[in-house]
Amino acid sequence: MIKIGLIGFGYWGPNLARNFSHDPDFELAAVCDFSADRLERARRLHPAARLCSSLDDFFQADLDAVAIATPVATHFDLARRAIESGRHVWLEKPMTETVAQAEALIELAQKKQKVLLVDHTFVYTGAVRKIKELVDQGRLGDLVYYDSTRVNLGLFQQDVNVIWDLAPHDISIMDFLMPFKKLAVSATGCHYYGNGLVPKSLLTIYMEGDVIGHINVSWVSPVKIRQTLIGGTARMVLYDDTEPSEKIKIYDKGVDLNEADKDEVYHLKVQYRVGDMHAPKLEDHEALALETRHFADCIRHGKEPLTGGRAGLEVVKVLVASEESLKNRGAPVELK
Amino acid sequence: MIKIGLIGFGYWGPNLARNFSHDPDFELAAVCDFSADRLERARRLHPAARLCSSLDDFFQADLDAVAIATPVATHFDLARRAIESGRHVWLEKPMTETVAQAEALIELAQKKQKVLLVDHTFVYTGAVRKIKELVDQGRLGDLVYYDSTRVNLGLFQQDVNVIWDLAPHDISIMDFLMPFKKLAVSATGCHYYGNGLVPKSLLTIYMEGDVIGHINVSWVSPVKIRQTLIGGTARMVLYDDTEPSEKIKIYDKGVDLNEADKDEVYHLKVQYRVGDMHAPKLEDHEALALETRHFADCIRHGKEPLTGGRAGLEVVKVLVASEESLKNRGAPVELK
Amino acid sequence: MIKIGLIGFGYWGPNLARNFSHDPDFELAAVCDFSADRLERARRLHPAARLCSSLDDFFQADLDAVAIATPVATHFDLARRAIESGRHVWLEKPMTETVAQAEALIELAQKKQKVLLVDHTFVYTGAVRKIKELVDQGRLGDLVYYDSTRVNLGLFQQDVNVIWDLAPHDISIMDFLMPFKKLAVSATGCHYYGNGLVPKSLLTIYMEGDVIGHINVSWVSPVKIRQTLIGGTARMVLYDDTEPSEKIKIYDKGVDLNEADKDEVYHLKVQYRVGDMHAPKLEDHEALALETRHFADCIRHGKEPLTGGRAGLEVVKVLVASEESLKNRGAPVELK
Amino acid sequence: MIKIGLIGFGYWGPNLARNFSHDPDFELAAVCDFSADRLERARRLHPAARLCSSLDDFFQADLDAVAIATPVATHFDLARRAIESGRHVWLEKPMTETVAQAEALIELAQKKQKVLLVDHTFVYTGAVRKIKELVDQGRLGDLVYYDSTRVNLGLFQQDVNVIWDLAPHDISIMDFLMPFKKLAVSATGCHYYGNGLVPKSLLTIYMEGDVIGHINVSWVSPVKIRQTLIGGTARMVLYDDTEPSEKIKIYDKGVDLNEADKDEVYHLKVQYRVGDMHAPKLEDHEALALETRHFADCIRHGKEPLTGGRAGLEVVKVLVASEESLKNRGAPVELK
Repeated sequence: MIKIGLIGFGYWGPNLARNFSHDPDFELAAVCDFSADRLERARRLHPAARLCSSLDDFFQADLDAVAIATPVATHFDLARRAIESGRHVWLEKPMTETVAQAEALIELAQKKQKVLLVDHTFVYTGAVRKIKELVDQGRLGDLVYYDSTRVNLGLFQQDVNVIWDLAPHDISIMDFLMPFKKLAVSATGCHYYGNGLVPKSLLTIYMEGDVIGHINVSWVSPVKIRQTLIGGTARMVLYDDTEPSEKIKIYDKGVDLNEADKDEVYHLKVQYRVGDMHAPKLEDHEALALETRHFADCIRHGKEPLTGGRAGLEVVKVLVASEESLKNRGAPVELK
Repeated sequence: MIKIGLIGFGYWGPNLARNFSHDPDFELAAVCDFSADRLERARRLHPAARLCSSLDDFFQADLDAVAIATPVATHFDLARRAIESGRHVWLEKPMTETVAQAEALIELAQKKQKVLLVDHTFVYTGAVRKIKELVDQGRLGDLVYYDSTRVNLGLFQQDVNVIWDLAPHDISIMDFLMPFKKLAVSATGCHYYGNGLVPKSLLTIYMEGDVIGHINVSWVSPVKIRQTLIGGTARMVLYDDTEPSEKIKIYDKGVDLNEADKDEVYHLKVQYRVGDMHAPKLEDHEALALETRHFADCIRHGKEPLTGGRAGLEVVKVLVASEESLKNRGAPVELK
Repeated sequence: MIKIGLIGFGYWGPNLARNFSHDPDFELAAVCDFSADRLERARRLHPAARLCSSLDDFFQADLDAVAIATPVATHFDLARRAIESGRHVWLEKPMTETVAQAEALIELAQKKQKVLLVDHTFVYTGAVRKIKELVDQGRLGDLVYYDSTRVNLGLFQQDVNVIWDLAPHDISIMDFLMPFKKLAVSATGCHYYGNGLVPKSLLTIYMEGDVIGHINVSWVSPVKIRQTLIGGTARMVLYDDTEPSEKIKIYDKGVDLNEADKDEVYHLKVQYRVGDMHAPKLEDHEALALETRHFADCIRHGKEPLTGGRAGLEVVKVLVASEESLKNRGAPVELK
Repeated sequence: MIKIGLIGFGYWGPNLARNFSHDPDFELAAVCDFSADRLERARRLHPAARLCSSLDDFFQADLDAVAIATPVATHFDLARRAIESGRHVWLEKPMTETVAQAEALIELAQKKQKVLLVDHTFVYTGAVRKIKELVDQGRLGDLVYYDSTRVNLGLFQQDVNVIWDLAPHDISIMDFLMPFKKLAVSATGCHYYGNGLVPKSLLTIYMEGDVIGHINVSWVSPVKIRQTLIGGTARMVLYDDTEPSEKIKIYDKGVDLNEADKDEVYHLKVQYRVGDMHAPKLEDHEALALETRHFADCIRHGKEPLTGGRAGLEVVKVLVASEESLKNRGAPVELK
């Protein structure tokens, strides 16, 4: 049994607590939150866990692992303290505020031989796993673009731009499906509600091999849209997360260029293939449950998580560059 | 009766010919095309029109007006010749290849007292006219964003990037609804099919008053999407042109900021209003028929068209700036 | 505090238990089930409740009310025993197997002055309550038809035809919105899977005033459809329960007959009105929670429930008549 | 070249005229209509055709074939006259008003060796042809049900119930896909608008082998629905004619009964299979154009049409029986 403690019992923390409770490998041993109300809620749902209103108290508990579900500004300090005190770490996304912090955590976890998992939940959904399977089987051909719209009304964060809140989902999915070197980022948007925050943004990520990522995120759309198009040279995928069934549609469609004519742009023969559509049955599990199983497996066998420090770092790199580009109306920022 | 001649009987020209034929104020007097096949098709459909395989022949015909439905590279020369020879002009979008050309045509039409209409067809649809009505009545409050996705498979152009083909629709709709000063443009995209053309692009237009336009255009999407979100401080609109009915949905939804707290970003109270949705019945006419009526009216009474040279110029400015930004991975280009 | 006991902890029972637990007026005092597994599940979720594996044990508990969530064949005996022993009763739908049983329970509850609520959950949803409000305000005009499709794959019952399983939802909604005298029923369907059960059926209910109800129910549809059309002379409603938002759409559409021509069928002028569509914001509560509150209110103040014995009886009458009609390929069965 | 004459240039006739004009095997030689306005319209669109305001004039023309697009009450007399005068016949649906009339036409056509095609257009669509292909390949297994909803606002006929107007589409599609012996019909509906016409109806067709057809037709629905479910023991199809693409979805879903338990109804193990969904690319042609080609082919080679007299008779049988059942609130009417 892996004894795990949770810091942060706000919006997402209770979901983690529930999953750790249900998993046969974990015991939810402690919950820490500064709010008495939240601790009281934790007490009702998890009467056996030790409740801590201070970090010092929490870190004195007998814990093998620590899950951190607090605002991003606190991630680095809490994760460092957890690893340094010998615990494995489950860290919410985005991993850290800066690239240097993410790199430091990766190095520390390696040195201390601790598992560091960053919670990129979507990577563990049946839908994204199925797309990955199609990619690995070569059924999409070469991947050429990722284009996602993730907009709705009502999740305004009070301290960060929308990019930090919603884009990590897409960046992590894209990085999982298309693990190509990212070259530069351009991000645009306005803070038109007068509070200095950008609630709506377009993001472009240039990758090697002329592969591109386009991400549209917004807190101020009247309707909820979760539409991701993934373009391959052989097939294309529409992933619509709002669909109750048929979340993934694979289109046997594409563009073929007539090789012979490549030099003569004006006489180029572009041809379309239009074939069948296929919606595969997806695994029907809770993503978080599978991720919890995976975390246990990594701890037990010293494995690197599917969404470890490297994946977390990739997301942070893009976010930090986006933030800079956003201030300069889309001017591209190179990634190292 | 206004005698009109048409140059170009390819993809769009036949639609113009049909509308001029049906309109009581126009007589389709001549059709010019370099292709014998196309002229033969014109002959079958419009037996009374004079068929011209040369421009010289065409311009010698007895014509009050000329409609130009040819590739953009030819627009300037043809429109200039038509105006200089004393004809009113109906010009397809985009108006010209350069800003200087558009400005020259505007000046020439003014000097010669001729009507110059640029065919921004969407402005004449029941849907866009209804949104304009809502805007003018103040029902949306202050407009803050325009966000459009216009993607599909299968309309690859062979000599221009997707921006020149699809974005004029959105830029002209946006300019009609939000006639604000445009400040800068950022555009991103890759030419990943190896033919030097960018088939997929994101466009951001910064306008005065922190208003923003986001446009996503693509020729390489497996599905057809025509989704435009228009955000106002009072209400928001979803305009979906693929819907057979209910193309426009007005959401009584919005974001309210607590005035008192505006300085304290971290304690800002962002509140959501979520109310009813309303889908107004739309006028049920062919946009092109209405535009044809409007062109006749402008010629008869010396009026400036709703989509005249100025509107055409605005679109060209954005396209030219986008093209430049595209080459620099989204670096913003200022508009004058 | 009303002490309530629950009989049946299978598919639906746990939902009732959860709602009674959360309601401030109820205390879930006992749970009865014949299955040890189910009782164990009840123990984990409701450790304070008395767990009973026999009915005798259950009825000896100190209870003010009894909720019955067992197969319909047991409803009459259990409800009678509960009322006779002085308890108020919450009874799952359909109320009983026969009309005589339903009438007997109504009489008994009246004699014993006990509340008898039949759980027609949909009547308590925000959607149905909103439609009722529209009806009561006269906004739909005179109601002329109810037409519902309730089909999906995967809820095969093993002892009853699909009519007993799915149609009670529609019959109860229809009876709530259109409380007209029901005259006759015709029902059709086949037992084509060779097990004697009819998994797919059409139901027509003739009501006074030429009002009609059409209900299509199926366990063997590859897709889930929950579509109800409600026709009024002034407006029409589409109620789609699978929509995440906009479950109700009110169409300002209708048919007008030219009064003058009513005799001359062949020259009748039928005219259509086509106007706006409106999707009102709905109350956002769990139907069962509201129904639980309502049950408490009825018990406290001796009120007749919105879905009491009379409503339950109407459903049973239609079901019994449908069963008979079904055996005779749609031959109409008169209702008394 | 087959010289064809058309009687009736109202709603549907112009579509026939257009298709005969475009087909290389036909020459549209004459058009007959009693309305001067309609004849004038025919003149503009088909200047080469002889225009006839009287039937005598029309039947004197030099014609190989006659197409009849008039109200059903006139079908028998016109078709008989055409065949007796030695012409092949294209007859609109429904074929005739009575079963005896349909039988007489079939016999006459056989005796005179003339082609008699009944225009069941949907049978020639890419969608229905694809489903037929799936059926013939056995991919759906044994067919067990046909369930169709065909409703909208605005096509009120003035002399017949909705069944005669809309149900022929479904009956003919069903007969094409499931050519099983029809045993009995039950039909329900009310004439609630006070003009003696039933604008909304449910139809059940019992076929041999416990196969069933359910059809829901209406002129008084606020929304347009064209949804057909076709259930097979191996797979199920959803055919939605309002979808711009993906009109046909094939679900690898079904119900399996545990053979061993077939006698023990109460302990029956019903199991569901839930697999992938597949939307095949469909032929992209106008159904009417294909049907026109087919008519020419039948005339040229003396073939029996896919939708000949037999198919037309099947539809008439069901309509006549439905009409009788409708008067008796769904009482079943046996088919011979």
